Amino acid sequence: MEFREIVMSRYATKKFDGRKIPEGKVSELLELVRFAPSAINLQPWKIKVVTDQKVKEQLKPATWGQEQITSCSHLLVFCANPDFDSLIKKVGQLMKTSGVPEEARTMVIGIATDMTGKMSGEQKLCWAQSQLFLALGNAVNGARSLGFDSCPMGGFDPKEYARILEIPPPLVPTMLCPLGYAADKPMPKVRFPKEEIFF
Amino acid sequence: MEFREIVMSRYATKKFDGRKIPEGKVSELLELVRFAPSAINLQPWKIKVVTDQKVKEQLKPATWGQEQITSCSHLLVFCANPDFDSLIKKVGQLMKTSGVPEEARTMVIGIATDMTGKMSGEQKLCWAQSQLFLALGNAVNGARSLGFDSCPMGGFDPKEYARILEIPPPLVPTMLCPLGYAADKPMPKVRFPKEEIFF
Repeated sequence: MEFREIVMSRYATKKFDGRKIPEGKVSELLELVRFAPSAINLQPWKIKVVTDQKVKEQLKPATWGQEQITSCSHLLVFCANPDFDSLIKKVGQLMKTSGVPEEARTMVIGIATDMTGKMSGEQKLCWAQSQLFLALGNAVNGARSLGFDSCPMGGFDPKEYARILEIPPPLVPTMLCPLGYAADKPMPKVRFPKEEIFF
Repeated sequence: MEFREIVMSRYATKKFDGRKIPEGKVSELLELVRFAPSAINLQPWKIKVVTDQKVKEQLKPATWGQEQITSCSHLLVFCANPDFDSLIKKVGQLMKTSGVPEEARTMVIGIATDMTGKMSGEQKLCWAQSQLFLALGNAVNGARSLGFDSCPMGGFDPKEYARILEIPPPLVPTMLCPLGYAADKPMPKVRFPKEEIFF
């Protein structure tokens, strides 16, 4: 499927038909998410994959009763990870084992340390949360490319999600992405005209 | 090109060869960006398209001298738009002219007003900036799908960009995306192992 067709046919699915996505397909999707870009390759996210129907039922009230949570096959809970000190160490190690020359590694680590060192706690969280939307974008486009559907969702109670799913701090549940096969039809895709967006 | 191939072959291009991307291709890319998803379809972004070489030269020092700014064909400056009151009005109008039933419109506008009304100024900006990464993701994947290259960049001085490009408040330059044809080779694509990302 061409990327244009993916972008134009993808939509926020409000109801799934309950069928399970084969695990092989889900693994393919997770690879597309894992290879999303992020600034300085910090990958400041972790993603909880929820499949247990009982757990999804528990999460539904913390998602204002939205039906996608229980009718989906797999629920991805995108958590921001603002623990930059450990991310920087891990990226340094990753570059070393991947054969990146020391000079390049030192430069990247220096930039990352300098940039994140100046941020307040709130700024760190905002930054990690923003990057996470690149991974989310790959999830929604990736789902369509693999023949199933998704719904990016920000309307939920992150504290309740953290409690029910035992998500440890400093991870912050930020966006949801239920996956499955649509049981609804898309609304017409409407956007601001290009003259209002590009200047 | 399959989406998996796009994701795996896309990389942050450090040097472009200076060739111009045909305007038709650029228009196709901008459509992929325009149709990116956003929460409540608010599309809280505007994107400045810079092609003038003299302007790009002026922007280079505000981008720590990074060469992509001047060797690219087109430079996209993604600006967050946290003016939610006007966005909500415009989305309401857009839904009306697109034939969305009044009941659905009232519900969407209610949710948007309620949600954004509770946010501080900083939270509004963070929220708009996060959403913008969905549009950026379509830009970098879209470029690859159309046969050219890109480089998402956060390392620049937003105030200087706003001054040089006369970007009016409340728009905030947030991410850059130079576009062109690569004159470098990708580094190996390294990511944290899946066990560290998914749980």
